Amino acid sequence: MRYAQRLSHIEPFHVMRILEAAQQMQAAGLNVIHLEVGEPDFPTPQPIVEAGLKALAEGKTLYTGACGIPQLREAIARFYQTRFNVIVDPARIIVTPGASGALQLILALLVDQDSEVLLTDPGYPCNRHLVSLLGGTSVNVPVGADTRFQLLAPHIEQHWHDKTVAALVASPANPTGTVLEPTEIKALAQACNARGGALIVDEIYQGLVYGRPHETALALGEDLFVVNSFSKYFQMTGWRLGWLVSPPEHVAALEKLAQNLFLAPPTAAQWAALAAFEPATLAIIEARRQELDNRRQCLQGALAQLGFGIPATPQGAFYLWADAGHLGRPAAHFCEDLLAAQAVAVTPGDDFGSQINFLRFAYTQPTHILEEACNRIHNYLISG
Amino acid sequence: MRYAQRLSHIEPFHVMRILEAAQQMQAAGLNVIHLEVGEPDFPTPQPIVEAGLKALAEGKTLYTGACGIPQLREAIARFYQTRFNVIVDPARIIVTPGASGALQLILALLVDQDSEVLLTDPGYPCNRHLVSLLGGTSVNVPVGADTRFQLLAPHIEQHWHDKTVAALVASPANPTGTVLEPTEIKALAQACNARGGALIVDEIYQGLVYGRPHETALALGEDLFVVNSFSKYFQMTGWRLGWLVSPPEHVAALEKLAQNLFLAPPTAAQWAALAAFEPATLAIIEARRQELDNRRQCLQGALAQLGFGIPATPQGAFYLWADAGHLGRPAAHFCEDLLAAQAVAVTPGDDFGSQINFLRFAYTQPTHILEEACNRIHNYLISG
Repeated sequence: MRYAQRLSHIEPFHVMRILEAAQQMQAAGLNVIHLEVGEPDFPTPQPIVEAGLKALAEGKTLYTGACGIPQLREAIARFYQTRFNVIVDPARIIVTPGASGALQLILALLVDQDSEVLLTDPGYPCNRHLVSLLGGTSVNVPVGADTRFQLLAPHIEQHWHDKTVAALVASPANPTGTVLEPTEIKALAQACNARGGALIVDEIYQGLVYGRPHETALALGEDLFVVNSFSKYFQMTGWRLGWLVSPPEHVAALEKLAQNLFLAPPTAAQWAALAAFEPATLAIIEARRQELDNRRQCLQGALAQLGFGIPATPQGAFYLWADAGHLGRPAAHFCEDLLAAQAVAVTPGDDFGSQINFLRFAYTQPTHILEEACNRIHNYLISG
Repeated sequence: MRYAQRLSHIEPFHVMRILEAAQQMQAAGLNVIHLEVGEPDFPTPQPIVEAGLKALAEGKTLYTGACGIPQLREAIARFYQTRFNVIVDPARIIVTPGASGALQLILALLVDQDSEVLLTDPGYPCNRHLVSLLGGTSVNVPVGADTRFQLLAPHIEQHWHDKTVAALVASPANPTGTVLEPTEIKALAQACNARGGALIVDEIYQGLVYGRPHETALALGEDLFVVNSFSKYFQMTGWRLGWLVSPPEHVAALEKLAQNLFLAPPTAAQWAALAAFEPATLAIIEARRQELDNRRQCLQGALAQLGFGIPATPQGAFYLWADAGHLGRPAAHFCEDLLAAQAVAVTPGDDFGSQINFLRFAYTQPTHILEEACNRIHNYLISG
């Protein structure tokens, strides 16, 4: 039996090897510090859990429509209005099984065999793989500190070819935590639309921003696609719920795809998510956002003292993208050795593209643990 | 902006038009009888709901591994042993977001651009669409009453070509409710494997069988893929949880795909599903299975009296595949007129392939409503 060609395009995540080794060390009784995992250490806020409990107790266990319950689509639209002052027709909002589902939907709409999609290098690796899953080719545009590791309109001009169908950007971005300015997104959308293509903006980390206002690309008009998630800001990772906002004319086609790909998003999670926008929940996650900001400042300062460069100040998500060039060897080797010697797990840049001298630190641990991690890194560096 | 070619291969479901019209009639106050929906009318059994409540209350809201929690993979393996007397290594079991996720996984493993997959006509329409989503071509093999609408080894010999990579069969099947005999599955697997391809057996309706033993294709060896679901037999539709059983050597590749496609199946649903195999739950669903059997006999008898042919006796699922040739016009027209005149919603054969003189009746309503539906059909026929 022969595998489909797409399998050969999917590189294994290096972080999986790190994670496996870390788990073996934990099983052997070692106290491993995890800075490699892209998941907040906070449980889902209690009002959301309680809404989920209520939904289950009421027997909300049957299928919903493929685009989700109208109540949730309307609640998301109201949130766009109250938080961002942007009017979004609920009919444009498609609730999906995680942001993974939303990304798959929009790529399935656009990507043909040999279609090209512009992505950033560094960038979230699953995006590349989803493009190749659909028969397309991801063009991983190298982006550096000069553009805060973001793809901008001039990149579109340079890399857009006959077969290009879309560009996918993220704000805040993984692994860099940098944010696109509204003017930059506007220029990106114009550049894509002028070429008959689409701009997809990943806003999965929306809300997790520090020292800047809450923003959405939807404020800039209807001619772009926005992917979002209840996982990160609302801390509902395990519920597998996200959404896609589409220009109105493409909703019918996306609904058809959703019916065939997923049938429907999980039911109780949808009813639970209605509580995500309540004042009590928003107060909880605002406090957590401030806590993440404290961690960010703590870790960024400590890493700088250890000689790591942070060439673009992260303004969102919960990652630091740190230049480890001063170590004089590939970051992946450093990650393996650091874990073995000091039980600190970090993700090597290799997982996000070609910047193999970089590391991604996730500040998904309390400040005192981040400090302990940096002490261990210090011990490792002076002993090396 | 141009859509990907796959969009043109996805026909709209006729039943969606029926459903929409039915909902409008309901909104106008009419008492519509739904025999078109492929979802049991039973809520999730209470022990499963309670396990879900407990999981949420305990804060089980974070991501799990891509293949699901070990506890659930082990519980599914134990169920194969206790119910079917088949040993399945838990490592071969990949928990997925619904059976949709399992089908997508296995097809993504096998289907390249222009690969062919043998399916049945009639068959579940999403399967065709998933194949074309991945760039492949579904070969919809016409199957008739002579093989109980099932694909058998001689069909493989006849329709397998250079580009064929797999055959997908279902037992019990949708829309026909017919079951494959173990000898037939064995011959199918041998025919596929001899050609370097794979046999995929959809056991989504496993357990919902009438007058015959519980069976699994896994009893026949490791050289096939089995797709299953918690939706139908365990009545967990809205939880979106299924699983895939693979030959051991392909699990690593499937896990890689699952990481990229879904990240992970929903967490609380996995913990809830552990209660699916408890004696209290199995007692509830056994009573419901008997109720479905009563409905099947009631509806089959009534439809026969109304002149509908049931050329292959259904032994599973909750569907009757009825020949409406005596009406002298396409079943789709009949469905629209029947709904308008008598408020009974049925799915036309068109949705499942080329047998457009057939109807699919879902017996997902209590017996007295099935009787009322048949009275209405009678009234419609005598008035027409």
